Amino acid sequence: MSIITAVDTFDVRFPTSQGLDGSDAMNPDPDYSAAYLIIRTNAGDGHEGHGFVFTIGRGNEVETAAIEALRLHILGREAEELLGDMGATWKLLVHDSQLRWLGPEKGVMHMAIGAVINALWDLKAKREGLPLWDLLSRMSPEELVSLVDFRYITDALTPEEALDILRRAAPDRGERRARLLTEGYPAYTTTPGWLGYSDEKLARLAKEAVAEGFTQIKLKVGASLEDDIRRVRIARETLGPDIKIAVDANQRWDVAEAIEWVGHLAPYDIAWIEEPTSPDDILGHAAIAKALAPIPVATGEHVQNRVVFKQLLQAGAVDVVQIDAARVAGVNENIAILLLAANYGVRVCPHAGGVGLCEAVQHLSMFDFVAVSGTKDNRMIEFVDHLHEHFVTPVHVHDGSYWPPSALGAGNEMLSQALTHYSFPDGAAWTATPSALVNLTSS
Amino acid sequence: MSIITAVDTFDVRFPTSQGLDGSDAMNPDPDYSAAYLIIRTNAGDGHEGHGFVFTIGRGNEVETAAIEALRLHILGREAEELLGDMGATWKLLVHDSQLRWLGPEKGVMHMAIGAVINALWDLKAKREGLPLWDLLSRMSPEELVSLVDFRYITDALTPEEALDILRRAAPDRGERRARLLTEGYPAYTTTPGWLGYSDEKLARLAKEAVAEGFTQIKLKVGASLEDDIRRVRIARETLGPDIKIAVDANQRWDVAEAIEWVGHLAPYDIAWIEEPTSPDDILGHAAIAKALAPIPVATGEHVQNRVVFKQLLQAGAVDVVQIDAARVAGVNENIAILLLAANYGVRVCPHAGGVGLCEAVQHLSMFDFVAVSGTKDNRMIEFVDHLHEHFVTPVHVHDGSYWPPSALGAGNEMLSQALTHYSFPDGAAWTATPSALVNLTSS
Repeated sequence: MSIITAVDTFDVRFPTSQGLDGSDAMNPDPDYSAAYLIIRTNAGDGHEGHGFVFTIGRGNEVETAAIEALRLHILGREAEELLGDMGATWKLLVHDSQLRWLGPEKGVMHMAIGAVINALWDLKAKREGLPLWDLLSRMSPEELVSLVDFRYITDALTPEEALDILRRAAPDRGERRARLLTEGYPAYTTTPGWLGYSDEKLARLAKEAVAEGFTQIKLKVGASLEDDIRRVRIARETLGPDIKIAVDANQRWDVAEAIEWVGHLAPYDIAWIEEPTSPDDILGHAAIAKALAPIPVATGEHVQNRVVFKQLLQAGAVDVVQIDAARVAGVNENIAILLLAANYGVRVCPHAGGVGLCEAVQHLSMFDFVAVSGTKDNRMIEFVDHLHEHFVTPVHVHDGSYWPPSALGAGNEMLSQALTHYSFPDGAAWTATPSALVNLTSS
Repeated sequence: MSIITAVDTFDVRFPTSQGLDGSDAMNPDPDYSAAYLIIRTNAGDGHEGHGFVFTIGRGNEVETAAIEALRLHILGREAEELLGDMGATWKLLVHDSQLRWLGPEKGVMHMAIGAVINALWDLKAKREGLPLWDLLSRMSPEELVSLVDFRYITDALTPEEALDILRRAAPDRGERRARLLTEGYPAYTTTPGWLGYSDEKLARLAKEAVAEGFTQIKLKVGASLEDDIRRVRIARETLGPDIKIAVDANQRWDVAEAIEWVGHLAPYDIAWIEEPTSPDDILGHAAIAKALAPIPVATGEHVQNRVVFKQLLQAGAVDVVQIDAARVAGVNENIAILLLAANYGVRVCPHAGGVGLCEAVQHLSMFDFVAVSGTKDNRMIEFVDHLHEHFVTPVHVHDGSYWPPSALGAGNEMLSQALTHYSFPDGAAWTATPSALVNLTSS
C-alpha cells in the first residue's frame, strides 16, 4: 500500500509565437504550453505519474489552478485504491458536486480532470511495467467497460453494446498486436501546411513529407479564399493525384460560408474538411456534411466531451472522429469515444501536434486497433515534427508511421530540464528573452 | 477621458451547505459563491463596475484566476473606448486567440468573460445614470445589433432578422415601459421545492408562495421516483388546479429515463420539465420534447453559449429558454439569445437564485419585454428568497412580481462588508466556523 504524497504542478510555455509554426486561421500566434502535473507516491519504486493539458499560451495559469483544485481528491489517498478502479476514480473527479458547476464536463475544469486522469494512467502503466497502449490492450472487455461512464450516452451506446464490440475484437488481439509491432500505425503530417508559410516553403515541405513516407498531408485554410485555392492547387500539383490532401479551417466559418468555401477547393480532391465551424455546432456540421458529401467532415480536437461526440455520430455530422488526448477527461472518456465511433462505424484519426499530444494520443489509436475497432484502414494519427525533444520518450515516427512505444507509461513525461527551462514566467527561456513575454503577459 | 486603474477580484463564498437550501439531485451540498470583480477608473465620478460568476463552492478560486487572466485586455485601457463599443469589447475578450483554446466559448473562461462584460455594463449604466434594463431599452435597434456577435449563428439569425425584430418592437417601447413600471414582471418561486425539505415544509412553503402572489412554483426531482410522485402530488393537492407546478431534474437522467420518469409525473399537470438531461445534449432534449409533448421542456442555466441555444431552437428541443446572467459571456451574448428566442417564437423564463442571479437577470427580461419580444405572456423570472441582503440594491419581489429597479447599474453590486465577511478562506464567516471549511478545502 502506498500513499499519494504530492501533486506538483508546472506552468510550462514554449515561445513558439516567435516563429509561425502552428499558425492557422484562428490561432495566429500560439505559444504552445502545458499545464503540467506530477503525481508522486511513497511507494519507493521511483514511479511518478505525469500528465498535462495542452494550451496555446495565455490562460495556462488558469488551467494549472484548475489542476490544483483537484488535489483534494488525490493527495493523501491510497494509490492502489485510485488506480485499482479507474472507472470509479474518473467519476469521483468528474462528478464532484461543486466543481461540476464550472463545466459541467467542459472547458478548463474538464481538461484539468483529463490531465489528472492521464497522470494516474501514466503511473498505473509504469507500475504494471507496460506502455499504456499495451496495458489497455490486455484488459478484459469487462474491465474496459468498467472504465466508461455511460451517463448521457446510453441512447447511442449501452454497456452491452460496448461489451459486444470489445468481445468481437478480443480473439484476434494477439494477431493485431503482432501486426502493430511490425507495421506501425499510419501517420499524416501537418508540418507543410501552416498558414504562415510561403508557397515555396509549402511545396518544399510537402515534397519532403512524401519522401519521408507520408501519404497524406494537411493544409490550414480559412483566412483567404484566393490564397487557399492557390495553396491547395500548389500542393496538388506538387504531390500528384495519389497523395491525400486534407484541409483544416480551425472553426473559421459559419455554416453557409463553409459550404461555399470548401466547394471552391473540391476540384483539388480534398481528403477531408476539418473543423469547418464551431465545435459546438452539431446541427451545423450535419448540414455541412450533407451539402459537401462525399467530402468527409472531420472534427474533434475541440469537442468537449462524449456527449457532443455522441450527437455528432447520431446526426451523421462527422465522418472522421478526431480524438485529442488532452481535451476531454482523459483516457477513460477517450475509450468511451472510441467505443461510440466503433458502434457507428466511423473512423478515428486523432488530432495531435502541440506539445506532447503525439506522444500521448498514439497509445489510444494503437489500443483501438488491437482491442476496439480492430482496423487501421483509412485511419491515421496526425503528426507534427515539433517539440518532441522535450519528452523522455519522444514518438518514433518514420516511414510514414508511428511505431509502438515500448517505454513504460502513457508517454506524457517531459524532461525535467524542459520543465525548468520553459517554466513561465521564471524559466530561462523567458527571462533570457524578454521580448517573448510580450505575447503572454496575462497576469 | 478616464483610464481603468484596477480590476480587483474577490473569492466570496457563503456556507450554504450547512443548511439544505439549494439542494437538488445533482447538487446535494452547494456553498453558493461568487468569483467577483470590481473595475475602477480614475474618472473621479465614484462609479465602479461590479460583476461576478456564480459558482457553488469548490473551484471558485479557479474562476477568480480566470477573471484575472482577462486583466490584460482591460487594465490601463481607456474606459470610454471599451464602454463606447461594447460589441467590439466583447469580441476582444471572447476571440483572444490564446485564451480561446481554453473553451472555446464555454466553461470557466467563458463565464469569466461574462463577469468582466457584466461589470463593464454595470459601469456603463452607472455612468449613463440608468438601470441596465432601461439603458438597453433606450438603445436603437442598430446599436443593439452591434452588440451581438453573429459568428456561428447566421444560419438561425441574421443581423437583418435581428434588426427586423427590434424595429418591430420599437414603436411601442414607451407603452410597454409604462406597463412594466405599473405591472412589474411575473416571477415564480423555487423556495418550496428543494430536495432536502420535508413534505410538511414543502406543503407549508408552497401555500406561503401562493399567499405571496406567486402563480407558479417549482420542485426539484430526479433522486427518487417514489419521492417525486409523492412530493408532486402533495404540491398539487395543496395548491389546487390553478397554480402551475414545474419540475426540475438538474440533468439527472439519460434520454429514455427522462421520458419514463416524467411520464409518471404527468398526471399532476406539470408546467415544464427542466434540465431533464445533459445541457450539451441537443438531440436528447429534442427526443425528450417530442416524446413528452405537450409537456414543455426547459433548459438553459448550464447551456454554455449562443451556439448551443441556437441548436436547441433549431431542433425544437426547448420550449422554455432559461437564460442565466452568469453562464454565457454576459449581457451581449444574452441579447443574442433573446433575439434567437424571439426569432423562433420561444418564450424566455430566466434561471435565477444562487447569489445575485435574480438581481442581474431581471434586467434582461425587462429589456426583452420593452424592446425585443414585446411580451410577458406566459413568461416569468425564477425567484429564490435567499442571500439578497448582501446586495446594494436587492430585488424587489412582491405580489408575485419583480418590480423594475430604479437604481443605476446592472444590479451586480455586493455590499463591501459582505465581500469582506464571506471572503474565502480568510473572511470571518469562514474563520469563525471552521466546520464550514470542511466542504471547501480545495486548495
